[in-house]
Amino acid sequence: MYRSHTCGELRSSNIGEKVTLSGWIQTIRDKGNIAWIDLRDRYGITQLVAEQGTVDDSIFEQIKTFGREFVIQVEGEVIERYSKNPEMETGDIEVRMEKITLLNASKVPPFTIEDETDGGEELRMQYRYLDLRRNPVKDKLKLRHKVSLETRKYLDSVDFMEVETPYLIKSTPEGARDFVVPSRMNPGEFYALPQSPQTFKQLLMVSGYDKYYQIVKCFRDEDLRADRQPEFTQIDCEMAFVDQEDILNTFEGLVKHLFREVRGIEFEGNFPRMDYAEAMEKYGSDKPDLRFGMEFVNLNSGAQGKGFNVFDSAEIVLGINAKGCAEYTRKQLDKLTDWVKRPQIGAKGLVYVKCNEDGTFKSSVDKFYSQEDLKEWADLAGAEKGDLLLVLSGDLDATRKQMNELRLHMGDELGLRNPNEFKPVWIMDFPLLEWDEETERYHAMHHPFTSPKKEDLDLIATDPGKVRANAYDLAMNGVELGGGSIRIHDKDLQARMFELLGFSDEEAKAQFGFLMDAFQYGAPPHGGLAFGFDRLCATMSGTDSIRDFIAFPKNNSGRDVMIDAPAPLDGQQLEELSIASVVKES
Amino acid sequence: MYRSHTCGELRSSNIGEKVTLSGWIQTIRDKGNIAWIDLRDRYGITQLVAEQGTVDDSIFEQIKTFGREFVIQVEGEVIERYSKNPEMETGDIEVRMEKITLLNASKVPPFTIEDETDGGEELRMQYRYLDLRRNPVKDKLKLRHKVSLETRKYLDSVDFMEVETPYLIKSTPEGARDFVVPSRMNPGEFYALPQSPQTFKQLLMVSGYDKYYQIVKCFRDEDLRADRQPEFTQIDCEMAFVDQEDILNTFEGLVKHLFREVRGIEFEGNFPRMDYAEAMEKYGSDKPDLRFGMEFVNLNSGAQGKGFNVFDSAEIVLGINAKGCAEYTRKQLDKLTDWVKRPQIGAKGLVYVKCNEDGTFKSSVDKFYSQEDLKEWADLAGAEKGDLLLVLSGDLDATRKQMNELRLHMGDELGLRNPNEFKPVWIMDFPLLEWDEETERYHAMHHPFTSPKKEDLDLIATDPGKVRANAYDLAMNGVELGGGSIRIHDKDLQARMFELLGFSDEEAKAQFGFLMDAFQYGAPPHGGLAFGFDRLCATMSGTDSIRDFIAFPKNNSGRDVMIDAPAPLDGQQLEELSIASVVKES
Repeated sequence: MYRSHTCGELRSSNIGEKVTLSGWIQTIRDKGNIAWIDLRDRYGITQLVAEQGTVDDSIFEQIKTFGREFVIQVEGEVIERYSKNPEMETGDIEVRMEKITLLNASKVPPFTIEDETDGGEELRMQYRYLDLRRNPVKDKLKLRHKVSLETRKYLDSVDFMEVETPYLIKSTPEGARDFVVPSRMNPGEFYALPQSPQTFKQLLMVSGYDKYYQIVKCFRDEDLRADRQPEFTQIDCEMAFVDQEDILNTFEGLVKHLFREVRGIEFEGNFPRMDYAEAMEKYGSDKPDLRFGMEFVNLNSGAQGKGFNVFDSAEIVLGINAKGCAEYTRKQLDKLTDWVKRPQIGAKGLVYVKCNEDGTFKSSVDKFYSQEDLKEWADLAGAEKGDLLLVLSGDLDATRKQMNELRLHMGDELGLRNPNEFKPVWIMDFPLLEWDEETERYHAMHHPFTSPKKEDLDLIATDPGKVRANAYDLAMNGVELGGGSIRIHDKDLQARMFELLGFSDEEAKAQFGFLMDAFQYGAPPHGGLAFGFDRLCATMSGTDSIRDFIAFPKNNSGRDVMIDAPAPLDGQQLEELSIASVVKES
Repeated sequence: MYRSHTCGELRSSNIGEKVTLSGWIQTIRDKGNIAWIDLRDRYGITQLVAEQGTVDDSIFEQIKTFGREFVIQVEGEVIERYSKNPEMETGDIEVRMEKITLLNASKVPPFTIEDETDGGEELRMQYRYLDLRRNPVKDKLKLRHKVSLETRKYLDSVDFMEVETPYLIKSTPEGARDFVVPSRMNPGEFYALPQSPQTFKQLLMVSGYDKYYQIVKCFRDEDLRADRQPEFTQIDCEMAFVDQEDILNTFEGLVKHLFREVRGIEFEGNFPRMDYAEAMEKYGSDKPDLRFGMEFVNLNSGAQGKGFNVFDSAEIVLGINAKGCAEYTRKQLDKLTDWVKRPQIGAKGLVYVKCNEDGTFKSSVDKFYSQEDLKEWADLAGAEKGDLLLVLSGDLDATRKQMNELRLHMGDELGLRNPNEFKPVWIMDFPLLEWDEETERYHAMHHPFTSPKKEDLDLIATDPGKVRANAYDLAMNGVELGGGSIRIHDKDLQARMFELLGFSDEEAKAQFGFLMDAFQYGAPPHGGLAFGFDRLCATMSGTDSIRDFIAFPKNNSGRDVMIDAPAPLDGQQLEELSIASVVKES
């Protein structure tokens, strides 16, 4: 038996007991006649003590040979601590060491195993197994475990069935790139790893499984941004014989359950809902952060036709009101202007209007606009004395995107994005299609199985871009937690959709033939939703980065630097797989 | 709202209620003035009725247009059934149809959606989404869901943490073949899909996560046998600061919990344990079926030295006692002989000894053995009047394997393998190494991280083949449910192991460098176990075939015939991945 208790378990009620603990040495303090060891395991830290006269002297000799991260087993008696530590759960007691067994030595770690470490990102990723010992990382993985468990508990309580779908499937040219897997047994042929179990979960509805879920790895071979991983986890769900309302209620219930059980947070009432169109108009984003207002104001009426060519030639002039920022200095405003002009944001410039305390206005476009004009803008934006209007203009889509970034940036600057506040919102009625300039055709905004809204069906023939879909996202704090749609279950409508998306019959059949076949044998009305599990965990923790919620993440080149993967294969392995490596000179 | 109740829910207490049901038409019986529909969903079947005079005539017209597997929605009143059906949970009631809405039509399915279907294996796999509607398949997936849920409940209750390990990892040349994934971002380099999360779970122990589990897909590119799948699911577990006894107790607890919660079966006392050596001696198998005896008997003493060259030149002469089979006819014995001579078994022949009711013996080797000799055999085997001794001989290993097959075959023949009886046994003390004739070196029987038994350490230098490992399997009814070992956590012992296995320092470093590095930073004593999840579910259901416990299985060529994967890729996709397809003419 290696231990009678964990290092997070002993309390004053255990005083007098003989115990055995095992763990890692966090710190040693050796004062010559008295020595302490902080012993750490997954559950906490317990202080061990050896005082001359009360223990065998050999223990002091032994301790001198130990260092940080050594693994030891200690037998001893729980005693009351002289100076208690109320910060520690085990802070009332310590263990008087009677016997120490060295279980394993440790080299000096390349960075300190502390909450605040001296190790940089790269070093910590290379020694991820040591990084995982640190509390901030451990706590994130514990939260992930709890979210996963509570997700299953909730879904099980409302009769969902977990069904595992295959990982070795078929590549589809639509959407993001697939990772593929050569088949040795079928030379020249390849499996693909699933980007999501979309078609399989729809097949399960055809099969009558009516409430399906899975917490499942998905794969996308994309050029990685900081918050993307080539493999990521989804809570994937589908329901049959339901309408949109049933789905929203079910998964609103899930999110409420998770926040209650994992974070102790209770949401009052129903989550608010907002049309996609409204979200874009007010926030320039389909995942608005509603922890603060600062809604967009259309300034076209007040800003155009006054001779300022930049605004006159713009499709839209948008303003936001930065409350209490009239005192911003020239330097601060220049910095903001530089910020919006960075290529990542892409604005051409930034116009400001200071609403001075004396009732006057000071703007960067005073040459073109009278005090009355500026007052009109301020009124439109609800700006009061002491406020600062920030104005961007240009094409509708681009300006909304830029203003969304600026709004979030100002929210950060003004401390309006409290990491412990959570503001969910359902974004409803997404467009069915989006126009792709490059290929000059419509693409499905969600996927080709998303159903159009009944009342918009006639628009399919006349104005396809205006057709709204039975599609919805759950956004929270500026993050998309999940999204889904009611699917098409009628094969004629599905055929019309494929036609609209420019699929020939052959293409549709080659890619989705089995699903279209399945739909001929009694497909029930169905719909579903998928949550990004890594991102859900990060959002619930009030952080942006998903990487630390993944035990063994990959870097931005898709590499696992710890195991050094990917790596070349030997020739024989390639030959068996009937493939050759064809690397171009670069 | 598509339904107020499911098709498995209504009871006589609902009589008089107006309800809405949705589902698939299982059958229609139309007698002209009265018509019944059996409506099916995931939860059961409810009988619907329309009687002339009590409903609008148009309903009869509507029903005439319906066929099997049409999806309909029905509104009506729950009424008492005239002739109740006690076999059905909803058999006390029926629903008088008032309004029917056709939700979707169905083509005539290619096979009947019944418990006993007329569809062959291949057809059912091609239309797996229809096969999944059948109760026998649905019940298996329901059981799988429940086993998964109860596994998590149990492991969570004893503080295990689920940690997801990566799917895109590094290929290792040891063991079975890897499936590989070309990396587009790292041309010429490949990921591998994990055969198991073995190294990652050991790293998690180094990281201090002390109780890890995961229900996880694993991948092996093997030539498939009937009961193998290229992707399969494992319950993968690892613990630190434990010895073998802790691990066995923990997972014996899990198996007992699963049988209790899922099957309502209680095991009395501890699972029996048997040394590997004893299992091989008595049953010729490391996964003996203990539902019946028929243990092997060594007949060397009685069978050798009597001039029968076949036995004299054999390393071993083994017998089993087939109780009550003395009456086997010539034809039956010939059939048995043919059976053991099939290439899958590979025996050269079969010797029998009938223990006649009159106390005499009749054998196929009467020429060489006296009645006294044969009596000696019978006594050794505990055979009585009316029994039949079956005898095989040859090399030790081969003969044991053949006799194991024959024993199981006779168990089947004699009805001794009751699918509702479950006999677990821990097989202990596996050999650490096995000699590979082809490469003329030792291979790790389990894997290179399995620890040798302390008391056998000295044998490593003198007689490596004799070294026993701290390795254990849980067998049940002739099936290996799972297995594991206590790992090596000492880097010197690990280095000695690699040397013994013929790894050069470079090879060991290239393959397992990160794990060996990790072991230098305070690796705790640890060990673990993995269950084959698909097989566990099959065994718990009393069946052999794992295929129906997998929603979308692959066939013996590794193909998913429903989605037609694997498939060729287009040239552009290959080019982006820096690979070429090199298919040899066959």
